[in-house]
Amino acid sequence: LATSASAFAPSAKSAAIETRLHETPGKINHKIDLDSPKVATQEKLGAGDKKVYCRCWQSGTFPLCDGSHMKHNEATGDNVGPLIVSVAKAE
Amino acid sequence: LATSASAFAPSAKSAAIETRLHETPGKINHKIDLDSPKVATQEKLGAGDKKVYCRCWQSGTFPLCDGSHMKHNEATGDNVGPLIVSVAKAE
Ligand code: FES
Ligand code: FES
Repeated sequence: LATSASAFAPSAKSAAIETRLHETPGKINHKIDLDSPKVATQEKLGAGDKKVYCRCWQSGTFPLCDGSHMKHNEATGDNVGPLIVSVAKAE
Repeated sequence: LATSASAFAPSAKSAAIETRLHETPGKINHKIDLDSPKVATQEKLGAGDKKVYCRCWQSGTFPLCDGSHMKHNEATGDNVGPLIVSVAKAE
């Protein structure tokens, strides 16, 4: 009976799977240095620099942001965006 | 017949769902400023600063990294890590 019920409720099951996909923390990097054990990035900045860094792991110019977070947010309902770092000019 | 086959192959179906969870890009932020339309962070640094910024969206000290990426990587098989920004000391 349990399997019959399951077989007759495909939409409920699909909804549950969608919920898991959107709410369960899973891999977030599907693209950047996948062979690396951990992608930690070291950046050195100087006076007057301003950089926009990716935090969505989808950028084609990683570690910099190329705007790909917008497509990611639209596709998934996410709300992620970049880190913008600016360094004061030399006095 | 199709529904019967499905009912008798639960492990194959579970495997397919696991694959989707690990390979389909989904929401990556389940925690930080969820009411915000987009979490973009502005940071101003000065000479001699060194900061470690979170890119896993799990940090308790976001936008800074608190090491939570390690637990995330272990749980999901991911390989993400922080962005480390250092600014040269004033000359
Ligand atoms: S492209 Fe990843 S945050 Fe903008
Ligand atoms: S806690 Fe998120 S990258 Fe370290």
